[in-house]
Amino acid sequence: MKTAPRAQDVADLAQVSQSAVSRTFTPGASVSESTRNKVLAAAQRLGYRPNALARSLITRQSRIVALVMSYLENQFYPLVIEKLSQKLQKQGYHVLMFIADIDEGADGVLADILQYQVEGIVMASTMLSPTLAKSCSDVGVPVVQFNRISDLGGLTRYATSSVTSDNAAGGRLAAELLVARGYKRIAFLAGLEDSSTSLERERGFKEALSELGTSVSYRDTGHYSFDGAKDAARRLFGHADRPDAVFVANDHMAIAVMDVLRQEFCLRVPEEVGVIGFDDVPQAAWGAYQLTTVYQRVEPMVDATVELLLEQMRGEVRAREIVVPCMLVERKTVRPAA
Amino acid sequence: MKTAPRAQDVADLAQVSQSAVSRTFTPGASVSESTRNKVLAAAQRLGYRPNALARSLITRQSRIVALVMSYLENQFYPLVIEKLSQKLQKQGYHVLMFIADIDEGADGVLADILQYQVEGIVMASTMLSPTLAKSCSDVGVPVVQFNRISDLGGLTRYATSSVTSDNAAGGRLAAELLVARGYKRIAFLAGLEDSSTSLERERGFKEALSELGTSVSYRDTGHYSFDGAKDAARRLFGHADRPDAVFVANDHMAIAVMDVLRQEFCLRVPEEVGVIGFDDVPQAAWGAYQLTTVYQRVEPMVDATVELLLEQMRGEVRAREIVVPCMLVERKTVRPAA
Repeated sequence: MKTAPRAQDVADLAQVSQSAVSRTFTPGASVSESTRNKVLAAAQRLGYRPNALARSLITRQSRIVALVMSYLENQFYPLVIEKLSQKLQKQGYHVLMFIADIDEGADGVLADILQYQVEGIVMASTMLSPTLAKSCSDVGVPVVQFNRISDLGGLTRYATSSVTSDNAAGGRLAAELLVARGYKRIAFLAGLEDSSTSLERERGFKEALSELGTSVSYRDTGHYSFDGAKDAARRLFGHADRPDAVFVANDHMAIAVMDVLRQEFCLRVPEEVGVIGFDDVPQAAWGAYQLTTVYQRVEPMVDATVELLLEQMRGEVRAREIVVPCMLVERKTVRPAA
Repeated sequence: MKTAPRAQDVADLAQVSQSAVSRTFTPGASVSESTRNKVLAAAQRLGYRPNALARSLITRQSRIVALVMSYLENQFYPLVIEKLSQKLQKQGYHVLMFIADIDEGADGVLADILQYQVEGIVMASTMLSPTLAKSCSDVGVPVVQFNRISDLGGLTRYATSSVTSDNAAGGRLAAELLVARGYKRIAFLAGLEDSSTSLERERGFKEALSELGTSVSYRDTGHYSFDGAKDAARRLFGHADRPDAVFVANDHMAIAVMDVLRQEFCLRVPEEVGVIGFDDVPQAAWGAYQLTTVYQRVEPMVDATVELLLEQMRGEVRAREIVVPCMLVERKTVRPAA
C-alpha cells in the first residue's frame, strides 16, 4: 500500500501554498476559483483526502448532523430530507440518517447516535423522551425538534429547541372554511393520539368550531398510515348518518380517505363530502386529488432549523421555539362559496 | 466544563468490565441483554459518548457510507433512503447524505465526500463520471451504483459495482402486454436521454415490439420531472392522430401523463389510451390512478447493494454487477384481455 499523500504533496503538485490547499477543503473559507481548481485537480491526481475526521479531533468539529426520522411513508418527510441536506451542505455540514421505529421513538437509536461525534441532532417525526433529552443535554449536543414538541413533564431545564408550523392556527383555518361553505356534520381524523402535531391541529379546529357555534360530530384515528386512514374512513362513512365533511390531520391520510369515499362509497367530493388535509405535499396537487389543504411551509421550517442548530453550536442560546405560520391552499375538495 | 467521562467510569458505575462497555458500543459484538442495559444506563447517567470518530482513526473504520442522490421528487428514492438506512443500520453503519445537482451529477460533491472518511459510497439517481470513478479507485473507497450504470468509456480498470433492475426485460414485459391487448399506435416517453435506466427500458421495449411485428410510433422525453412529463404528454396527445398507448419510463411521470390525458384531453384510461409505468411506487396503487407498472424490487436491490459494499470493504472482490429481475403488476390502466 502506498503512503497516503499529504497536503504538502498537493501544494507542490498544484504549485500553490499549503494554506491554499487547506482553504480549498475548509467549507466557507476564501479561495479563488482558479486556485481551487488547481488544488482539486492535484488532489484528485494524488488521491489526497483531507481527513475531516482527523481534523474533527483537533477542532472537535465533525461537521455531521444526525437526522432521526421514522415516517418516510408520508411524502412530507422526503422533502425535509432533501431541503435540510441541501441547506446544511451549503453550511459545510452533512446529514447522517438514523431511522427510528415509529412507536419506540428516538430512544432506540440513542446509543447509536452517541457513537458518532455529531454536532447536532434534528428529530423529525419522532418523539423525544425525557431520558433522551437529558442525555443530549448532558453531552452538550444541540437538539432541534422538527414538526414535533415533546411533553418533557417538569424537565424544562432539558428543554430543546423546536420548529413547528402554527398547527392550531392551521386547524382554525380548516374549521372556518368548512363552516363558511355550509358543511354541518363535521368529522376530525387524528394522526397519532400522542403526537403534538395532531393534537394541536385538533385543538385549533375544535376551538374555532366552538366559536362558530358548532362542534366535531365524529372523530377517529388513522395512525398516520395510509391503510389506517382507509380503515378509519370506512368506520366514519360506512353508515347512513355519515359526516358531510372531514378535516384530516395530514395529506397522506386525506388521500387515502378520498380513495375510500369515491371508490368504496361512491360519494362525490366536494358535493357530498368536503375534505381538507394538512401539509400540502406535492401529491395534493395531483390532478386526480386536487386536495384543499393547509400548507406547511417546509423551506422556512428547514431554514429555522438550521439557524437554531448553528446558534446552539456556537453556544449563543440555550433553546428557542420557532413557530412558522401556515396558510390555506384551496383546490377542489371543499365546495365553492354559494 | 466537566471532564468527559471515560469507559472505565461507565464500567465502574455499571459494575461490569471495561471490555463489556467496549463491546456494548461495538456494532455486531457479543454482549448479553442485561449487561448491555446496565452499560447503557450508566453511560446515559454519566453522559458517556464512545467516540466513533476517535476509534475510526485507530481502526480506520468510520462506519459511515455516503449516499449521493439528486432526485427525491420521484417517490422511488425516499423508499431507497429508508430501506438502505435501515439495512446499513443493522450492520452498524449509517448513511451520510449528499445531494447532487441532477445535471451536474456526483462530481460536484466529490471534494465534499472525500473530506469525510467514508467507508463506501452509494450513488443513486446520479451519473458517475470517469473522473469520479478514478478518484474513488485511487483512494480505495468502494462505490456501488444504484439503479444506474455509467458509461466509463475504456476505463474498465476503474469499474465500480452496480445494482440495477433488469430494465430491458421490464421494457419487454410492457411491450408484450400492450400488443397482446390490441393497442396499435404505441408511444414511449423517455426519462433523461443519457440515463442508462431509461435507455435500457426503451431498448427492451423496442426490441420486443419489433419481434412482435410493430414499432414505437411516437417518442418524447419528460426529463424525469412531473412538469416535463406533462409537457411531453401534451405534445404526444394534442393532435387527432394520437397514440392509443404509452409506456412511460417511470411511475412518477406516468401519473403526470394520466392527469393530462384525463383532465386536459378528456381521454379515458384504459379504454382510449393504455398507460404503463415503471417502479411500482406506493402512489401507483392509489385509487385514483391504479397504474399498471413494472415492479422494481427495492428490497432485494438494497440487500444486494449492502452485500456488494460489505464485500468490497472486506477487500473480497473488486467489482460486480447485480441485476435484479422485475415483474409486471397489472392494475387498471391497460384494458383487460378481450
